[in-house]
This record gives sequence, structure tokens and C-alpha cells, in this order.
Amino acid sequence: LIKSFDELLVKVATLPKRHLAVAAAHDLEVLEAVSHAVSYGLVNATLVGKRAEIERIAQEHGIDLSAMEIIDAEDNIQAARKAVELVSTGQAHMLMKGIVDTANLLRAVLDKEIGLRTGNLICHVAVMEIPGLDRLIFMTDGGMNIAPTLEQKADILQSALAVARKFGVVQPKVVPLAAFEQVNPKMQATVDGQALHEMALTGEFGDALVSGPLAFDGALVPEAAKHKGIKDPAAGYADIILVPFIEVGNVMYKSLVYFGNTKVAGIVVGAKKPIVLTSRSDTPEAKFRSIAVASYMAIE
Amino acid sequence: LIKSFDELLVKVATLPKRHLAVAAAHDLEVLEAVSHAVSYGLVNATLVGKRAEIERIAQEHGIDLSAMEIIDAEDNIQAARKAVELVSTGQAHMLMKGIVDTANLLRAVLDKEIGLRTGNLICHVAVMEIPGLDRLIFMTDGGMNIAPTLEQKADILQSALAVARKFGVVQPKVVPLAAFEQVNPKMQATVDGQALHEMALTGEFGDALVSGPLAFDGALVPEAAKHKGIKDPAAGYADIILVPFIEVGNVMYKSLVYFGNTKVAGIVVGAKKPIVLTSRSDTPEAKFRSIAVASYMAIE
Repeated sequence: LIKSFDELLVKVATLPKRHLAVAAAHDLEVLEAVSHAVSYGLVNATLVGKRAEIERIAQEHGIDLSAMEIIDAEDNIQAARKAVELVSTGQAHMLMKGIVDTANLLRAVLDKEIGLRTGNLICHVAVMEIPGLDRLIFMTDGGMNIAPTLEQKADILQSALAVARKFGVVQPKVVPLAAFEQVNPKMQATVDGQALHEMALTGEFGDALVSGPLAFDGALVPEAAKHKGIKDPAAGYADIILVPFIEVGNVMYKSLVYFGNTKVAGIVVGAKKPIVLTSRSDTPEAKFRSIAVASYMAIE
Repeated sequence: LIKSFDELLVKVATLPKRHLAVAAAHDLEVLEAVSHAVSYGLVNATLVGKRAEIERIAQEHGIDLSAMEIIDAEDNIQAARKAVELVSTGQAHMLMKGIVDTANLLRAVLDKEIGLRTGNLICHVAVMEIPGLDRLIFMTDGGMNIAPTLEQKADILQSALAVARKFGVVQPKVVPLAAFEQVNPKMQATVDGQALHEMALTGEFGDALVSGPLAFDGALVPEAAKHKGIKDPAAGYADIILVPFIEVGNVMYKSLVYFGNTKVAGIVVGAKKPIVLTSRSDTPEAKFRSIAVASYMAIE
């Protein structure tokens, strides 16, 4: 069981080094993040993008590219396709979004010929180390799917469960997040939360324990859950938080990062191989952790 | 300008003491909160509810009721109506929800004969003191309106502006919260955020500065706003956060309270007089602060 990012980094260091393909690497922040990870020995990397620009940026900012291969691409779309192809042909183990738009990257990922398509929805899982909690929290989806349907939520949950299980969580405790615990037909989050709970009882999610709809305190604060009289094994002890809308997940992890000293990493799953998708406002540490998470997930 | 709860409490202590009418006070936690506020000299109070039960609970738990008037009521609905009537006739200055359902309380508040109805939507404003920020943040609506329309958001914003202005905020900076800054027709939060920005430019919200849609970091973290290249006076310096859905506000303030050492108080506005509506999971301190906020808002 991996309970912190420190434990994850130690674990990753003992495993065979994975190879990263960067889609559209001609960007300073992307090059900094990748060269940082490569120089620390976390991963190997192939930079796909406009070679001349990559070399110019590296030279101007003193970034050492000698340990990385560069594959030239005319534009971002071509870079995305070439990077995806490196992964689908097994020359790389995971993909990283560079300066290409998410939409264009996903188009390449979902391409029927060269892509990494599976039957699952592509979704974002945030891995969070929240001070005061003795475990990592997996939160989805605060980054890709705007307002998933019940069916999509079930699909997203399967992906999040795969991540949690890879981290060693047995019988993952899942909370479908809502504003209140009572089912209210006017609040889809509560209706879907109840439905997911019932689906779990039929074995749909394996050994996962899925509560009904709970608010944030009912999910993560044992005393609050107790005080509210919630009797559910996941109440107060959630491993996975499934949010109803992208805005809910987004505000949750940003509140915790900026005002709760929480360490976070993001990973995009649901394709054949993990995808690193960092945001411009992520710190270098957050980008490093995200590459580490993807690298760990890329181990078969 | 009131920049913290300490400043608020000092301010309230210098003003004429306000009178609280409690709707359905026959509940231990309600009696504890009210007697705490009364014993500290924060407010006077009239307890409306099942007299025998109120007296029994008080005796069992050593709660001193001698400074409070009790008005007997047969049931919660009658208690709500009587308490509302005390406020609408000027015998009390503000209302507090006891053990009565929110729906039943609001029915009494909105009653055309005895009620406190105005043209405005009833909404919840959370006042937050977030460590690291030099001002109070007013967040709405994480407690009453589930998924407000644009028109309802504008109405809620007017109420939040009234609260912020009462606290002395000049030219309140408002952020309509979203997951991203770009307007995306698939994300109503961004579309409405842009519309609110444009309404503000026509003077709809007085001197308030309303940004377009911003994510949490763009709203409250100056460095993140700068890094993202957002050029807006509210970016990083929001006084008011207008959330798109109840779940977003709920998770935001609970994340900050439970893992960010944030102090919070809640107030329900939009009726003729302020309403205290605390949650069972609020700490005694949070309840005390909520009564203080309502008490301050009840000063003409």
C-alpha cells in the first residue's frame, strides 16, 4: 500500500525506468518539467515537436537535452499523432501533453488506427496527499468530464478504482460527493450517488465499498460523519471521491492545494496507457509527482 | 472595513444588542448555541417551540434559560410561523432556524401575510476567514439554491454584495467561479460568468468589479492569476465568490474549514431580516460567529 508521495517515489525508483513520449514539447515549461524528471532519473523521454524551437528554448534557458531523443514534427497535431504512435507501438510507455490543446491530443489518443482507445471514458484522477490523513485520496473527475451521466460516472469510477488498486488499496472506499446526504430528486448528485451505491451492492465495482451521496465532511472527516449519524464504512474514510461536476473537483483540489498544504498529482486514465496532463499553474513539484504517478501506472 | 471575525465581534459589541427569535428551539444543540450567545451578551433571544421539551432539555443539561423568553408552540410549523411573526412585527430583529425543516421555515418566511418576503431570492452567504488572506471572503450560494439560473445568480449576487458592503467593502471584487477561465458553451458556469461580467459593465451591480469566469486559483491566489496571465482587477483578489452550483460552494467551504483552518459563518439573506441557519456539524464557534454575523446584518 502506497500511502504518500514519498513512498511512491521510492517505489518507482526500484522499478524499471519507464519511457515518456511528449506531445508538442516546444514549450519552456514543458521542457523544464521533462528535463527535471529525466535528470532525476525518474523517466526516459522522447520529445516530439518542432525540433528547432525545442533546441532554441533549451539553449536560451540552459536546459540539457543530451539525455533525450527529439523527433521533429511540423505542427502540434502532427506532434500529438507521432507521440501517441510511439506509445501505441510500445516505443514509449506513457504520453505527456505538451503545448498541444487537450482536444487535439485526445483526438490523437482516440484515433482508431494509431490511437490508444479502450472502451473506457478518458478521465482525470487527482491523487492527493492531504495533511492529517493517513492515506492518499483519489479524486475524479475534476479535469476532463464536465457533467458526467450516471453511466459515465460508473465508467470513471472503474478507472479511479484501477488507480487506487494499483496503489495497493484493498476494498477501496468510495464516496459519490454531494452537498447533502439525503437523496433529493432536484439534486442529480444525490440521485446518482444512491444509484452508484446500489450498483456496488450488485458487485458492479468488485470489492469496492461505495457509500450513498455524502458531503465533503461526511466523506473525509470521521468525527463529522459520526456527528451526522452516517453509518457507512466509507463515511469519514473515503479513498476515492467521485465528484458530480468538473467544477466541484476543481475547487476541491485547488482549495486543498492553495490553503491546505495538500500535495497533488494528476493523471489521465481510460486510454491503453497513462497520460500526463499538467496545468500551467502546477508547481514543478506537482508536475514531477504527476510524471511519477503516470510512470508507476505504466508498469504492467 | 471589517477584515476578520475578531473585528466583527468587537464591532457588534459596541452596537445595540439585537433580539433573536428561534424557530423550534426544542433541541439540545440549538439551545446550547443560543444560550452560549445570550450568556456572552451577543444577543437577546426568544425561544419559540414546545415549552415542556425546551425546559426538560435545559434542566437535563444544565442550560440556564432565565435570560430568555419562551413562547409555546404545538409543533414545528407553528413554531416557525410564530418566530417569523415576532420578526415581521419588529419584536425580534432576526430569525434562527431551530429543529424545524428548512423547507417549513422558508414557507413561513415567504408567507404573504406574516412573512418576511422581499422581491429577492432567499440565499446563503458563507463568510470565511482564510488564513493567509488579509480580508474576509463572502461565498454564495453553497447552502440554499441548487443550480441557479443566470437571473437567479444576479439576484444572489445582489444579496452577497449587500453583505460585503455592510462589512465595509468598497468596490467589491466578484468572481463567478468556474473550472477554467475560457468561455465554453458546454460549461454553463463560464457562460454565465461572462454574462455577469457584462452585466456589471452596464452598472447592474453598482461599483462592484465582476470578472469573467475564473477558477479558484485565479480568484484567490494572486501569483496563480498572474502566472495564468489573467488581467482583471478581481483576479487573485476576490471579495465575493459566486459559485455555479450548491455542490461547488459546499465542497469549497468544507475543504477550507476542515483542512485549511478557515473560520466560517453562515447567513441566510434575501428576506427582510437576516436568518441564522447553522448546520448540525458546525462547531459551537461557527454557530456563535453565524449569530454574530446575523446580528450585525440586523443593524439598520
